[in-house]
Amino acid sequence: MKNPIITLLTDFGTKDHYVALMKGTILKINPRCTLIDITHHIPPHDIKEGAFLLANTYAAFPKGTIHLSVIDPEVGGTRKPILLVTPNYFFVGPDNGLFTLALKKEKVRKAITLTHSKYFLSPLSRTFHGRDIFAPVAAYLSLDVKPEAFGPHLDAWTAVDFEKPRIGNEGLRGEILHVDAFGNLIISIDEKQLFHFVDDRSFVIQIGRRTIHDLKKGYWEGKRKEPMALIGSGGFLEVSIREGNVQKVLKVERGDPIEIELKTRNSK
Amino acid sequence: MKNPIITLLTDFGTKDHYVALMKGTILKINPRCTLIDITHHIPPHDIKEGAFLLANTYAAFPKGTIHLSVIDPEVGGTRKPILLVTPNYFFVGPDNGLFTLALKKEKVRKAITLTHSKYFLSPLSRTFHGRDIFAPVAAYLSLDVKPEAFGPHLDAWTAVDFEKPRIGNEGLRGEILHVDAFGNLIISIDEKQLFHFVDDRSFVIQIGRRTIHDLKKGYWEGKRKEPMALIGSGGFLEVSIREGNVQKVLKVERGDPIEIELKTRNSK
Amino acid sequence: MKNPIITLLTDFGTKDHYVALMKGTILKINPRCTLIDITHHIPPHDIKEGAFLLANTYAAFPKGTIHLSVIDPEVGGTRKPILLVTPNYFFVGPDNGLFTLALKKEKVRKAITLTHSKYFLSPLSRTFHGRDIFAPVAAYLSLDVKPEAFGPHLDAWTAVDFEKPRIGNEGLRGEILHVDAFGNLIISIDEKQLFHFVDDRSFVIQIGRRTIHDLKKGYWEGKRKEPMALIGSGGFLEVSIREGNVQKVLKVERGDPIEIELKTRNSK
Repeated sequence: MKNPIITLLTDFGTKDHYVALMKGTILKINPRCTLIDITHHIPPHDIKEGAFLLANTYAAFPKGTIHLSVIDPEVGGTRKPILLVTPNYFFVGPDNGLFTLALKKEKVRKAITLTHSKYFLSPLSRTFHGRDIFAPVAAYLSLDVKPEAFGPHLDAWTAVDFEKPRIGNEGLRGEILHVDAFGNLIISIDEKQLFHFVDDRSFVIQIGRRTIHDLKKGYWEGKRKEPMALIGSGGFLEVSIREGNVQKVLKVERGDPIEIELKTRNSK
Repeated sequence: MKNPIITLLTDFGTKDHYVALMKGTILKINPRCTLIDITHHIPPHDIKEGAFLLANTYAAFPKGTIHLSVIDPEVGGTRKPILLVTPNYFFVGPDNGLFTLALKKEKVRKAITLTHSKYFLSPLSRTFHGRDIFAPVAAYLSLDVKPEAFGPHLDAWTAVDFEKPRIGNEGLRGEILHVDAFGNLIISIDEKQLFHFVDDRSFVIQIGRRTIHDLKKGYWEGKRKEPMALIGSGGFLEVSIREGNVQKVLKVERGDPIEIELKTRNSK
Repeated sequence: MKNPIITLLTDFGTKDHYVALMKGTILKINPRCTLIDITHHIPPHDIKEGAFLLANTYAAFPKGTIHLSVIDPEVGGTRKPILLVTPNYFFVGPDNGLFTLALKKEKVRKAITLTHSKYFLSPLSRTFHGRDIFAPVAAYLSLDVKPEAFGPHLDAWTAVDFEKPRIGNEGLRGEILHVDAFGNLIISIDEKQLFHFVDDRSFVIQIGRRTIHDLKKGYWEGKRKEPMALIGSGGFLEVSIREGNVQKVLKVERGDPIEIELKTRNSK
């Protein structure tokens, strides 16, 4: 690869040296890599949050990008270190479900269990495979080492459950998938699911004790201090407040439910 | 450009994927860019804080650097996306005053409204022009696309008001422009303004309930636990405390007033 | 140098523009540098924390890496700006003990006091030598300027005291050297010191009011909610809790003591 890019997504934070240890390890093997942080502020051990952010980010990068993702509570135990190759990307990390959501959009061409220790740091620690296995494997990949060189074929990989929006008594029910730094609530219902459900009928969004009665096109259409809904930049239903923090106003959390109810034409 | 540099300044924080989405978008268009974060921790929607930090940073970068700045509360509304070209730099972002302070020191040679959608992502969202307009325009600029290619000439751009230091009854009055991570207070009075006012006469600085009676040359001259004033590294009057956090000691905030009073020779 | 790497470690935080000012200054002198952040979240003025993180990170980087480290409470005072050259690395920063721990593992080949102002920014501030001295010196080093060009030979440099583990009445006594973002406690006793002391006898680790009776191989062996000890990825004794934050559970802080007591064979 001419200009190899490796992204990093971890739950390591940025106050410690752990991310720098991974970057130094990569640059020792291939000093020509471009290293891009997705984030290191995934809450500790939160595989689902990592899976969400990775799935909504990886495709923005150029073909050939190596996505190195390490949220690894079972490091050193029986979970496998893996490499998944899709037509456009490489995913390197622990086999614990971190790639679940990204793989719903990507076709896996090759899946490899990382076993060939000549591509690992030595001695190999039992607590930091981000530095000792995943970083060097990503670096060797960026030098065009073939995926098969890292270990044997992997038949199946782990997925974590993300609840799909459900149609129930009350309507279409989803949950808060992610709360961003602005306090915006990203909902587990995407544009297509929403419009399939509501068709062209009018609807009400119920979140916490509040109801929202229409979709805005953008934040600028909202009133200050009044929660609004819109389709956000990732294609999901989003609840927001103009120049405010809707999470603090509604006092809701990731995982909290949200309902879409249809209004019949003669309902008041 | 041989080694194009793009800086990023936003209010997106670093816990989400928004900054990575901008970086991936840029690298897809030009994988040879060097990407440098100024900061992503501007308080949400705080255009004035962004304007201050940008104005005090941009000139440290090499000639030709593209400064991509996105604090954009009115994204998708009527505010224009713009490009401003000065003899040494490019500024890309929303037309909302973010460039006000930088442009006091720079001569604008070209001003462009970004309208040519062939340089935007498609489909274009209404909530994330950082990814969809500003990042790709910066990337194409780094590939030497001419500024005129992005849209028509822009006649005037938006400025935000920064209060100038005022000479009043009590003396020279300024305000706290910025509080840094050490708690140091950067004051809206620069070295030249201060010395023009005080001439060679002695003076007292009034901040909160405290008075400071002289200027130190550096932090090392201060006493521990005692607020001091000095000319900081950005050329502004600064209030600090040796190895301490003067903001916490004085319990002051950005925007709070500060007074410089002259002492007459025979005053006690 | 073909692909010069400069690392940055500071106590500047990432909300301000100070790190970007250093990076811009470097890139103005050598736009081909790769800049890698170790961390900027060292607590303000905390030289010992900086020394610990640097010592545990620098060797992960390729030979020739320039380590630019700026925790500099006495900036502008009498402390010297220095450059230390070891067989594999360059260290640039203030002479205040920041390099103490790294230099226990490295042989200093050349030590230089930075005095030649042609390699500094001009005018030179008295409050920000990270930007005005250390960044440009690092950048010129990356252009292969010889160390001797920056100033005269330095005979001795400053060290800070790190207490060594002591054998006392109660056993081997160490302290908490570092608390990481997961809440893991890195102890001042390394693997070699521990096993030299305990030999093959069984032992008890006393921390706060808790005792830990054995060493785990990895986090996955621990029970949830129960503190465990292991040898961490840096080679130090580490106290942790499986998928939890042991610092919050034990309510301990950096600097708190930890004891290793031997158990005699017939003790109950």
